[in-house]
Amino acid sequence: MIAAYQAQCQCRVDAALSELLQPPGAELQRLYQAMHYSVVNGGKRVRPLLVYAACEALGGEAQDADGAACAVELIHAYSLVHDDLPAMDDDDLRRGQPTTHKAFDEASAILAGDGLQSLAFEVLADAERNPHAAELRLAMITALSRAAGPAGMVGGQAIDLGSVGQQLDQSALETMHRYKTGALIEASVRLGALASGRADDVALKALHAYAQAIGLAFQVQDDVLDVESDTATLGKTQGKDQANHKPTYPALLGLEQAKAYALELRDQALHALRAFDNGAEPLRELARYIVERRH
Amino acid sequence: MIAAYQAQCQCRVDAALSELLQPPGAELQRLYQAMHYSVVNGGKRVRPLLVYAACEALGGEAQDADGAACAVELIHAYSLVHDDLPAMDDDDLRRGQPTTHKAFDEASAILAGDGLQSLAFEVLADAERNPHAAELRLAMITALSRAAGPAGMVGGQAIDLGSVGQQLDQSALETMHRYKTGALIEASVRLGALASGRADDVALKALHAYAQAIGLAFQVQDDVLDVESDTATLGKTQGKDQANHKPTYPALLGLEQAKAYALELRDQALHALRAFDNGAEPLRELARYIVERRH
Repeated sequence: MIAAYQAQCQCRVDAALSELLQPPGAELQRLYQAMHYSVVNGGKRVRPLLVYAACEALGGEAQDADGAACAVELIHAYSLVHDDLPAMDDDDLRRGQPTTHKAFDEASAILAGDGLQSLAFEVLADAERNPHAAELRLAMITALSRAAGPAGMVGGQAIDLGSVGQQLDQSALETMHRYKTGALIEASVRLGALASGRADDVALKALHAYAQAIGLAFQVQDDVLDVESDTATLGKTQGKDQANHKPTYPALLGLEQAKAYALELRDQALHALRAFDNGAEPLRELARYIVERRH
Repeated sequence: MIAAYQAQCQCRVDAALSELLQPPGAELQRLYQAMHYSVVNGGKRVRPLLVYAACEALGGEAQDADGAACAVELIHAYSLVHDDLPAMDDDDLRRGQPTTHKAFDEASAILAGDGLQSLAFEVLADAERNPHAAELRLAMITALSRAAGPAGMVGGQAIDLGSVGQQLDQSALETMHRYKTGALIEASVRLGALASGRADDVALKALHAYAQAIGLAFQVQDDVLDVESDTATLGKTQGKDQANHKPTYPALLGLEQAKAYALELRDQALHALRAFDNGAEPLRELARYIVERRH
């Protein structure tokens, strides 16, 4: 069931993203090509799915969430482009395809990432693409800018780069992941909830607890898969984290304990949704999927 | 007179920027240091000055414009950090000091720039830092995200990098500069006008014409100074544009014609302000200063 829901969300957000990434003039064609390449690449669209599913959990419609879904994916896509750069993680492959700086060049990759970030905020501010009351659009911009910024995702990448080869304990590792990937996952859920137009503080708090748990589960499972999978299945270079001496959950807890921890986090996520009705089923399915996926 | 006004604006915006760039925790200290280094560097704060001066031209107070002034400077600072990277313009010096990737490292410079961009939108959305009605804050976010994005500043840098070694005519050169530097200058004036709370369409149109003219004048004069000044006065490597075979106005029009063109643009800017009262004096002074400055 989650596969069908995922395909539906992917289809919706990909259509909206493609429309956003049409070059406004011939002189900007190459830049827009690089942005389009960086975004429209068969990604699973986990964050847009979270936006749609959180919106639906509170009784909203998918079209209420299209703008927010685009915005979180634009931020995610830009972060991958910049993280792959030679000065950062230096990755040549992403989902089995050349990374943006390999398919284009480094300058284009830097600029494409920069432009995608601006576009994310432009979309959220736009009353046509994000048809909500002014205060709601501002609440979304606040949540996304904080989650993306130096006290969020960018900060997490900085901590990650600074921790290569260091011994982190579980608490320091979780702090890093909460910044690096957790903040944007939490923002995706929050933006979706806001897009429903029906988010109260109780619902936002429950959804925040859900998002925290799945964000961490996602990371733990990623680390597990990095150990277990081979390069072909994963579409990126296998064992890279270990080779770089990056701290991982299997390295810290042992492989079996890491797997058990992922399951515990799934249960925490499901518990956070206990007061929600059937509308929250996609969120629940996703929590299960995260720890069962093989890539 | 413009020097005193400039010092006053610089002081205001530097205080607000420094406050914004305090690290929220020890683990983010290095990233915030890199952001602080990139922003608080003795810059002339031309764009914040434009924000304050446009606000004042419509009868607004300086404190109405602090948030907008910070936001445009954060965008400008991030663009300099990324433009200086080895994959882009590859500059070691900026205002006579090591560029961010030289003082820190490339990864820190990329991340600092990314974080500064997010912060700009966070500030504009924040009702405390940018105390205006929700619709006004959104109008500012729309203007700044468009000006900063792929159909603005980022697009201009992409066109600029793509045009190295090419023969551009005056029209293509102006298109490039309108994207690369003009868009953010126009946005600065627009945000200042919006911050006054008293901007009508007639005033916005006149200020837009002013901003277009001074944006171009600024660039023409920069090109002139790049030919005439030496490295010590300019704080960057002299003749670099020429050495890179970048198209410049003196190369295209001849040095004397380029100087005459700068003066013509100044007069256009002053003409656009003809209906404004004494509150627009700082804007007028700035138009004069741009073409008279020696560095």
